[in-house]
Amino acid sequence: MKELNVYEHKAQYYETDQMGIIHHSNYIRWFEEARGDLMEQSGLPYKGMEEAGIICAVIEVNVKYHSMVRFDDTVNIKANITQYNGVTMKVYYEIKDKDSGEMRCTGETRHCFLGKDNKPVSLKRVNPKYDNLFKGLISD
Amino acid sequence: MKELNVYEHKAQYYETDQMGIIHHSNYIRWFEEARGDLMEQSGLPYKGMEEAGIICAVIEVNVKYHSMVRFDDTVNIKANITQYNGVTMKVYYEIKDKDSGEMRCTGETRHCFLGKDNKPVSLKRVNPKYDNLFKGLISD
Amino acid sequence: MKELNVYEHKAQYYETDQMGIIHHSNYIRWFEEARGDLMEQSGLPYKGMEEAGIICAVIEVNVKYHSMVRFDDTVNIKANITQYNGVTMKVYYEIKDKDSGEMRCTGETRHCFLGKDNKPVSLKRVNPKYDNLFKGLISD
Amino acid sequence: MKELNVYEHKAQYYETDQMGIIHHSNYIRWFEEARGDLMEQSGLPYKGMEEAGIICAVIEVNVKYHSMVRFDDTVNIKANITQYNGVTMKVYYEIKDKDSGEMRCTGETRHCFLGKDNKPVSLKRVNPKYDNLFKGLISD
Repeated sequence: MKELNVYEHKAQYYETDQMGIIHHSNYIRWFEEARGDLMEQSGLPYKGMEEAGIICAVIEVNVKYHSMVRFDDTVNIKANITQYNGVTMKVYYEIKDKDSGEMRCTGETRHCFLGKDNKPVSLKRVNPKYDNLFKGLISD
Repeated sequence: MKELNVYEHKAQYYETDQMGIIHHSNYIRWFEEARGDLMEQSGLPYKGMEEAGIICAVIEVNVKYHSMVRFDDTVNIKANITQYNGVTMKVYYEIKDKDSGEMRCTGETRHCFLGKDNKPVSLKRVNPKYDNLFKGLISD
Repeated sequence: MKELNVYEHKAQYYETDQMGIIHHSNYIRWFEEARGDLMEQSGLPYKGMEEAGIICAVIEVNVKYHSMVRFDDTVNIKANITQYNGVTMKVYYEIKDKDSGEMRCTGETRHCFLGKDNKPVSLKRVNPKYDNLFKGLISD
Repeated sequence: MKELNVYEHKAQYYETDQMGIIHHSNYIRWFEEARGDLMEQSGLPYKGMEEAGIICAVIEVNVKYHSMVRFDDTVNIKANITQYNGVTMKVYYEIKDKDSGEMRCTGETRHCFLGKDNKPVSLKRVNPKYDNLFKGLISD
């Protein structure tokens, strides 16, 4: 499999809070950015999944904040699918400072897949294309 | 017409930025809160309008920042419909500090109404109930 | 100890996403709102803590999403301090629909306390007032 | 003067609302991103200005929404300084779809400069370096 590019995010002013650091809620949003980028680089963007009538819902988020990201810092975000069984998926994230390589944040999200009626579906059954994508992306 | 209650918003920590004040983008969101509250207090919540297949799209926003709102301040927000012709609407806002009464921000938003296909509709024609609501709320 | 009021939040339009539900990152912000309200109702608002030179940093967030919150829903948010040892603190949250009582989300945040130089401090040592507050609020 | 690169922003899922489009408050944030990029490309990033004790406060925002930006769209954002007199500054923005070139949004922000005590300062007097930057960037 071809090597994927690391996803970069530049910390914006509107993401800071009065502690002078990035507000902790934004890392969850950066996870989402990196997850989307992973799918796009793999050739099957998330947008197409929703267009096919399937939603990838977040059912769990866990975040550990190691050190602070500040305005104007650029961070590298790595997203890896660590579990996928056709029905649920787990993604693990590492956010590091681009310059120093220092770890800023680690976390994981857990997902299930919902059909048009917002009922859980087996991706394996309803969409083999995305099922194959996620199977192929599983790593440790 | 019965007197409406003033809408209150308490400035949250996640709304601050590293200047130690509320980030200017949030006032636009507070305008939306106050606009929704105006409709709700008038007996026709915005939610019902979307359920009836009509969207109230924002086509213009103008904001003047007079003085700073800080974390934990409570502000009073007044929303008044200043123009409405069945097709477009203008809403004017005043945000004042609840304690001191000092003006923090004034602004206005301009809206049009869109049907299910995202095409402009005449509210007057497609939804007399909401048309009447907005007509009745026009003030200076 | 006097009974505390349950904290309420009304889900805003700007908090929705194109799934037609509240974006999952906002619950983290609602946890912060409820945590702040807990301190305020207990007579020692968070603002005073920062004014005394101490920051309550978030070092961990864990969230489980049980069911969806939608625009215009009002939720009740309960925040309980479940662990506090003078140096770190754990807060547990439950978000329920105000009308149906249905569980929407549970979660917890872990915190440490930082002094002006952003170095960890023992709250017990540097600020007995807030130390006593948190000790008095510990529940299961 | 060397040609500046156009600033790009990819519309994120967390920026959408339940209309299925980008929530209108985010464009204000994108203006801020493009303004920061303009300063950075010109060799004097905004961060350095704050480090020198000067804040560039927003005192007015005006936005016209021409057409909708959707999730996963990439937009090009052009920021031009249209007025600068040493004390206040006006910046004009155009947001266009990267692929089609269609206009999505135009707007402007007005700014003043504040010193450490949050009092207005003349940038011309207190910081000739940034004063020269802005003077050099004025265009129509």
